[in-house]
Amino acid sequence: MTYIHRMNRLQEELTASGLGAMVFNAGPTLGYLTGLDFHLMERPVVLLVSCGKGPVLILPELEMKKLEGRSQDFQVFAYGENPEQWSAVFRDALADLGLAGQKICMEPGQMRMLEYQYLQAALPGLGLVDGSASVAKLRARKDAVEVAAMRKAVQIAEQALEATLPMVKAGITEQAIAAELVVQLLRHGSQSSLPFAPIVAAGENSANPHARPTGRALIDGDLLVIDWGARYEGYCSDLTRTFAIGRPDQESLRIHQLVLEANRAGRAAGAEGVCCADVDRAAREVIAAGGYGAQFVHRTGHGIGLDCHEHPYVRGDNPELLEIGTTYTVEPGIYLTGHNGVRIEDDVLVTESGAESLSTMSRELRFL
Amino acid sequence: MTYIHRMNRLQEELTASGLGAMVFNAGPTLGYLTGLDFHLMERPVVLLVSCGKGPVLILPELEMKKLEGRSQDFQVFAYGENPEQWSAVFRDALADLGLAGQKICMEPGQMRMLEYQYLQAALPGLGLVDGSASVAKLRARKDAVEVAAMRKAVQIAEQALEATLPMVKAGITEQAIAAELVVQLLRHGSQSSLPFAPIVAAGENSANPHARPTGRALIDGDLLVIDWGARYEGYCSDLTRTFAIGRPDQESLRIHQLVLEANRAGRAAGAEGVCCADVDRAAREVIAAGGYGAQFVHRTGHGIGLDCHEHPYVRGDNPELLEIGTTYTVEPGIYLTGHNGVRIEDDVLVTESGAESLSTMSRELRFL
Repeated sequence: MTYIHRMNRLQEELTASGLGAMVFNAGPTLGYLTGLDFHLMERPVVLLVSCGKGPVLILPELEMKKLEGRSQDFQVFAYGENPEQWSAVFRDALADLGLAGQKICMEPGQMRMLEYQYLQAALPGLGLVDGSASVAKLRARKDAVEVAAMRKAVQIAEQALEATLPMVKAGITEQAIAAELVVQLLRHGSQSSLPFAPIVAAGENSANPHARPTGRALIDGDLLVIDWGARYEGYCSDLTRTFAIGRPDQESLRIHQLVLEANRAGRAAGAEGVCCADVDRAAREVIAAGGYGAQFVHRTGHGIGLDCHEHPYVRGDNPELLEIGTTYTVEPGIYLTGHNGVRIEDDVLVTESGAESLSTMSRELRFL
Repeated sequence: MTYIHRMNRLQEELTASGLGAMVFNAGPTLGYLTGLDFHLMERPVVLLVSCGKGPVLILPELEMKKLEGRSQDFQVFAYGENPEQWSAVFRDALADLGLAGQKICMEPGQMRMLEYQYLQAALPGLGLVDGSASVAKLRARKDAVEVAAMRKAVQIAEQALEATLPMVKAGITEQAIAAELVVQLLRHGSQSSLPFAPIVAAGENSANPHARPTGRALIDGDLLVIDWGARYEGYCSDLTRTFAIGRPDQESLRIHQLVLEANRAGRAAGAEGVCCADVDRAAREVIAAGGYGAQFVHRTGHGIGLDCHEHPYVRGDNPELLEIGTTYTVEPGIYLTGHNGVRIEDDVLVTESGAESLSTMSRELRFL
C-alpha cells in the first residue's frame, strides 16, 4: 500500500505541476516509489510514471525475480543480454503511451545519458526537463515508516561509535579508527552500503571539512572530528562529534564551545513554516558573534533520507519552508587551517511542536 | 607520472578516433586519469580533456583541498555553495576552448543529466556522443600498478571468506553469513566501499543468480552460493564459490561438477587475441554437453577493474579480442529453479603465455 500511495501522490504532484510523465532510473527515488532496489550498472533500468496510464518498468530479464510476490501493478518489459536488442524493448515499452514529442521530467542528479539515449531513441523528439522539485517535495516529508528507519539508522551509528571510542587515544591512526568504526557500524546493523565512508580527521586534518582518514597518528593537543553514519532499510544517518586528545589549547576549546552553541541554536530554530535560511542564520550568527564567521566555510546542513544529501538544503540563500516530517542535518563547524577543526552534526525531524533531534549522543567535548 | 601518461594516452586515443574532446564527471574514469576521488553528489564535478589544450577541472570550492600537492596541471574552476552561480563558472571554464557547437564525447553509463545541462548551457549547440569505447580500450589493459592492486583485492576477498567459513553450517541464516563476511572483508583490508554487497544464497535462493541474503537458515541438502569481492586502491575483486551443507542430492553434486569443469574450460580459453565469444563458448559448451545449457542463464563473465562490471563483456555475441593486461571474470553457473544453484567465479588476467587466474582458492565442493 505504501508504494501505491506514493505513486499516486507523485501522479497528483505531476498533474498539479502540469507535467505529463516522469522517468526514473535505478536509484533511491525508484526504490521510494516501488520498494525495488536496483543499482546503477551497465544495464539500464527505467520506470516511467505517467498521469494517464499505469507505470511502465523496463529492466534486464536477470532482474525479473525481484518482481515476484509484489502487489504493485507494472507493465513490465524485460530485455536479454545483448545490448543491440535493448532499443527495441524500449520502443515496445513506450510506443503506446502517446509521449512522442512531449516533455518528460526526470531527476538530473540521477538520470544518466545511458538511459536518456534509449529513451530518446524510443521517443523521437523527446525533451527531458528537470522534475526533481516534484520528487523532492514528496520525499522531503517522511512518513512514520521512514522516520522509524531513520531513528534506527541514528541509533546504529551512535552505538557503533560508542563501541569504537575505547580504542581512540594518542598513537592510533585516523585510518585504524575509521576501519574499526566501519566494522562496528556493520556489527550494529547498518547495511553494508554505508551512506559515506567515515571521516576521521585529527589536528590539521580536522580543519578540512572533507578530509579522508590518513595514516596520521593522534597526538596530544589534537581535536578529532568523526563524521559517520549508518544505513537502515535504505535510510541514512549522518552525525559528527568532535573529541579532544590530551589537552588541546585554549582556542581549540573555545571553538568547540562556540560550535556546540551554534549546533544548539540551529537545532532550536527548526519548526514547521520556518525557512531553511533562518535555520542557517541561527547557527551562523553564534559563530560570527564569536569572531569565527569566516572559518565556518560551508552551509549549515542538508536534507537526509534515502539520500544522505537531499532536499532541502539548509543554506543562507534558501527561502524554502520546513514542513512536518522533513529531516535534515544541523552541522555547523569552525576550521582553523593548519591547526584544529570542530564540527557537531545532528539529524533533526520537524514535528508538530518544533524540531526533534533524532540523535542524542552527548555533544560536549570528551577528552580521550 | 602514471596519471600524466594515462591522460596522454587518452588524448592520443581521441585524436586517433577523430574526436576533439571528452568530458568526465565524478567516477572511476576521472579517478583513473587524475588519481582524484570524487563521489557523485548534488554538486557537479567535471573534467574536460581536449586534444589541443591542458585539461580543465570544474569542482566545488569545498573540494579544492584534494588538489593540494598534486603535480598534474589542470586549469581549475571552483564554485561556491549557491547553485545559481554554478552556470557562470561553467561558462568561464569552457569559454576559451573553442568547443561551442562541437561534438564532445562522454561515458553514457556515468554522465548525468545534471552535468550535461551545465555543459549544454555553457556550450550552446553542444552534442554529447558516446566515447566510452575509447576509455574502455585504455582501461581494459591494466598496467603493473593496477594488476598489483587487483591481486591484493583478490587476496583480501579470499582471506575474508576463509575467516568466515567456520561459522557456516546448518541453522545459520544467509544474512548472518553475509554480515560476517562484510566485517571480515574490512578487517582484511578492503575499502569500505565494497564492489557490491555479497550474495549469500542457499537452496532455492541459490537458483537466483542475483539473490540478496535473506533470513532463511541453511538446511541439510542445500547448495550455498557465496558471491563476494573486496576493493583495494579502487580496484575490485569478484569471486564466487559454492558449498554443500550436509548432503545435497546427486543432481546438485552433478551440476557442481559440471560448473567446475566449465569454469576450468573458460579460464583455459583466455589468451591474447582470443575473442570474448570464444571464452563464453568454451564454458557454455561444457554445460550444454552435460544437458544444462538452458539453466546457464547469463553471460560467462565481464571485465573487472575500477568498476566491478566493465569492458570487455564475455558474451557469446562479443567478437572483441582479448589483449595482454585485460582482466575479466569467468563465472559459469547452473540454476535449478526451486531447488539448488551453482556458480564458480574467478578473476582472470591475460598474460603473454595465456590467462592466469588471480584467484586460487579451491573450487572443489566443500562440505560444511
